[in-house]
Amino acid sequence: MARIESKGVLTAALLIIGNEILSGRTRDTNAQWIGEKLNERGIMLVEVRIIPDHEEVIVGAVKELREKVDYLFTTGGIGPTHDDITSSCIARAFGVNLELNEEAHKVLEEHYGADGLTRSRLKMAMVPEGCRLIGNPVTAAPGFCIGNVYAMAGVPRIMQAMFEEILGLLWEGMPIISNTIACSLGEGDLADDLGEMQNRYPDIEIGSYPHYRGGVPGLSIVLRSTENDKLDAATQELIGIIRRLGDEPRAISVRSDMGD
Amino acid sequence: MARIESKGVLTAALLIIGNEILSGRTRDTNAQWIGEKLNERGIMLVEVRIIPDHEEVIVGAVKELREKVDYLFTTGGIGPTHDDITSSCIARAFGVNLELNEEAHKVLEEHYGADGLTRSRLKMAMVPEGCRLIGNPVTAAPGFCIGNVYAMAGVPRIMQAMFEEILGLLWEGMPIISNTIACSLGEGDLADDLGEMQNRYPDIEIGSYPHYRGGVPGLSIVLRSTENDKLDAATQELIGIIRRLGDEPRAISVRSDMGD
Repeated sequence: MARIESKGVLTAALLIIGNEILSGRTRDTNAQWIGEKLNERGIMLVEVRIIPDHEEVIVGAVKELREKVDYLFTTGGIGPTHDDITSSCIARAFGVNLELNEEAHKVLEEHYGADGLTRSRLKMAMVPEGCRLIGNPVTAAPGFCIGNVYAMAGVPRIMQAMFEEILGLLWEGMPIISNTIACSLGEGDLADDLGEMQNRYPDIEIGSYPHYRGGVPGLSIVLRSTENDKLDAATQELIGIIRRLGDEPRAISVRSDMGD
Repeated sequence: MARIESKGVLTAALLIIGNEILSGRTRDTNAQWIGEKLNERGIMLVEVRIIPDHEEVIVGAVKELREKVDYLFTTGGIGPTHDDITSSCIARAFGVNLELNEEAHKVLEEHYGADGLTRSRLKMAMVPEGCRLIGNPVTAAPGFCIGNVYAMAGVPRIMQAMFEEILGLLWEGMPIISNTIACSLGEGDLADDLGEMQNRYPDIEIGSYPHYRGGVPGLSIVLRSTENDKLDAATQELIGIIRRLGDEPRAISVRSDMGD
């Protein structure tokens, strides 16, 4: 990881805010979706943190993570209810006030009508001073970015629309290419050779992932790098190793980390 | 969250170790599964952190999180390959050495046979000094616990078997009961009343979760508490509020947080 970072790949962290994820009530799908999108843009997700709707915890995590990465994304907690405290926490983390954003106010008024814009809904137009809004084509209530922090909704459909809007604004890192090779060897059969390969290819991240599909064990080897030529050479070596060990690589995908 | 913690609920954190989760290649399902199981036992999952196979990051996270919670669980990185570094990182976090565990050695030898027990596979018998093994009925290679840290496999089927083994060893907290009520109101319609209710019921965690099912928006209100009587009273109030606002609660589940 450190190796690839040093090659000029940008980094990101994701802060998932919400008691409902921690209690197991809701399964988060945003982390995987965001991880893939960032990967395609050459931005490496280096940490995901799921935390409760708790002011001190959110403020602390925002302060800590935004210093560690190029981009910090947050999901959840920007709605109208009492437990939606992300906006005020991010404002506090930046030492600024919340203010009524006129543009957000107007958008919400158009969406809900003057009568439907309750005091609670108006709260969704309260954002940190100096931020930029992120549009929400689904339910109008905007996200926002301030500094390197991007606050988005938690509902996947809304989050994805917001993310698509901001993706084009992010710097592009060197794309991380990955090759995935599947075989039916055990991890322990390949481990010595993989370790030895990793030593010779320090610029390639080599991971092995055992899995069960329909009860049948299998193994995927994923090679990731920003350097195409080295990646291809290592992939060819790996194919040779698997054949030498008496197996045949069953699937080879050369894709930007979309899995095997 | 702080409120419920102060009522004697135990706390836990989960550290998910693996580049494949961060790149989006693999979707984590362990967090939700573990969150539900802990919840049933009155143990509140207060943080989930997903981090890469990176020594400094793992050691730092183990040191930090194990101080913050009653139980720290880790998943991933205890296999035979070069990127499986969880055991050595946890040893380092505790300031102890890795040692060859005789019991683990024996179990692995029985599973793989003396010939199949390669140097790489033997690595899976190297665990921190002074730890206790966690059995693995699926692939023999054990997990372990040391202090309040429980290291498990990342493959869900194996992790679940390990977790079932240790669950009975954990302290039981006060069970957190939850009532879920679904309606078709908007969050903003209910927000003022919910905020007011939250002020009157400080011991109940009130969350509202908008969702789209088949494109139709809906809202679930989840009330959580360790105190049954207060929970029932608040639930009856909420039903009254929803009816007053012209809607009919569509589903009421009184379950230990299994969702609606």
